[in-house]
Amino acid sequence: MSLLVIGTVAFDDIETPFGRAEKIVGGAATYIAWAASYFTDDIRMVSIIGDDFPKSELAALQERGVDTSGIKAVEGGKSFFWAGRYHHNMNSRETLVTDLNVLADFDPVLPPHYRDSEYVMLGNLTPSIQLSVIRQMSARPKVIALDTMNYWMDSAMDELKEVLAHIDLLIINEDEARQLSGQYSLLKANDVIREMGPKYLVIKKGEHGALLFGEGHVFFSPALLLTEVQDPTGAGDTFAGGLMGYLAGNEDLNFEVLKQAIICGSAMASFCVEKFGPEALRDIPSQHLIDRLEKFSMMMQFQVPGLRKSQD
Amino acid sequence: MSLLVIGTVAFDDIETPFGRAEKIVGGAATYIAWAASYFTDDIRMVSIIGDDFPKSELAALQERGVDTSGIKAVEGGKSFFWAGRYHHNMNSRETLVTDLNVLADFDPVLPPHYRDSEYVMLGNLTPSIQLSVIRQMSARPKVIALDTMNYWMDSAMDELKEVLAHIDLLIINEDEARQLSGQYSLLKANDVIREMGPKYLVIKKGEHGALLFGEGHVFFSPALLLTEVQDPTGAGDTFAGGLMGYLAGNEDLNFEVLKQAIICGSAMASFCVEKFGPEALRDIPSQHLIDRLEKFSMMMQFQVPGLRKSQD
Repeated sequence: MSLLVIGTVAFDDIETPFGRAEKIVGGAATYIAWAASYFTDDIRMVSIIGDDFPKSELAALQERGVDTSGIKAVEGGKSFFWAGRYHHNMNSRETLVTDLNVLADFDPVLPPHYRDSEYVMLGNLTPSIQLSVIRQMSARPKVIALDTMNYWMDSAMDELKEVLAHIDLLIINEDEARQLSGQYSLLKANDVIREMGPKYLVIKKGEHGALLFGEGHVFFSPALLLTEVQDPTGAGDTFAGGLMGYLAGNEDLNFEVLKQAIICGSAMASFCVEKFGPEALRDIPSQHLIDRLEKFSMMMQFQVPGLRKSQD
Repeated sequence: MSLLVIGTVAFDDIETPFGRAEKIVGGAATYIAWAASYFTDDIRMVSIIGDDFPKSELAALQERGVDTSGIKAVEGGKSFFWAGRYHHNMNSRETLVTDLNVLADFDPVLPPHYRDSEYVMLGNLTPSIQLSVIRQMSARPKVIALDTMNYWMDSAMDELKEVLAHIDLLIINEDEARQLSGQYSLLKANDVIREMGPKYLVIKKGEHGALLFGEGHVFFSPALLLTEVQDPTGAGDTFAGGLMGYLAGNEDLNFEVLKQAIICGSAMASFCVEKFGPEALRDIPSQHLIDRLEKFSMMMQFQVPGLRKSQD
């Protein structure tokens, strides 16, 4: 089924303890689309770029079955640029430069053939832009998922809460869940956040995995153990892309399918961090992906222990 | 089968954001024995206490089927005392007081009927004491498990490495695994540490769960989500106790049984942190324990996603 993806398409400078990369392709929508393209075909991107953005990058996405006609190229404009540096084995990062450039005037107008999309992934952007996209849909999508960040909780909480009332699935990290809910316990945070609107909540814990809440259940996906992590940039977006791509590739929507979607997101994120930028997402053979999905199963399957000793 | 437990039996003062408790019973061996007692019967404790230690506490352990004849009471001596304070939602703790007292002269002599124990849990102590216990066994135990800490890595690495060569299972936390191996990647840390001797390695990640390595496999147990965490003291020992108790209660020893043992350890730890000290471990009804074990299953079971879209 169709998946609408909105988010940044950008250039990044990235420095990690393992090396550096300059002016490589990045942006939330880029990672989301690449990851989703392994699970579903009809992907429609909405974003804004300058005329400095290489056409070959858009062509590569088109070859993966991604419709890029919703990406507006501003003549004479410069693409969004982010530079960051990771410290201490990737656990913290510092933003060195944020040049909004064309993103400053981003006011997306969906192409008419995008408006019936059944799945919508709203990447991290101003809540008012996220809301504007929802309002342009011709019918209520089957699933609207949203990513956001602490910055919008600090600066635009009212607008954020308005968007949350319209979505099905919120994908945020641990700190953001605590800030949004005012609760430290993630169980309590889930209760508060789900009251705000989303039927399902995913809490990302980076190298410690991800939690899925919904329908009275909790599911947990660990992060795969890796020998080398080169660059965590885009891992969260890649996770969301794998997740939403898997949902869009399936007829059913229930907790069992969502569990599988979380695993797909985690598997895609494990590829992402092994190379700089979205490089590792460009050409993953099916068997590599299947092998990773099975690794999760091996890490998690067990028979419930029986009690040989009764306490009562 | 028989489980020998060696470790501290102590008094603790504990302060957490949720309250404080003074001079409550603590010590690694206490938590280990209580947790193990839910899974196996023949538990034999080795420790040292002063004559200030309440006899009723030993009687309570005896009622759970724990042999306390190996706990030496020093006349006129004072029991080991630790005082600590937890900060920031339990993620860091500060030691306020450590009074070794009788522990300073601890040189355990195993009672003759302890020496044929089939399972041995060496709680965190000076490596030379851990080694002395191994040397007193009349036959090679089926499983020797060991807990240690960064302090011994800093001050007694040679002795620690000597003990590691004699054990089957090492149970340490994430930071300790990184320090012991000199590797940040836990996959690489596992390779280095398993070369030192242990056939199996468990890496505890606190609220983020625990990893089990061995026989070419990796297994992961999440920590159960809890509404309220009162006091994390003893959670690691409780985890080890549940784990070793489950192993001792089973004939088989293989990766499948170890996976179940990790789950039992995690379940016991989830009870432990809900109250101050070992209080929550004293009277857990079978059904409560079974319910928790099943919660892990619900958090972790999924069907491996199929790929509908081939990349090749």
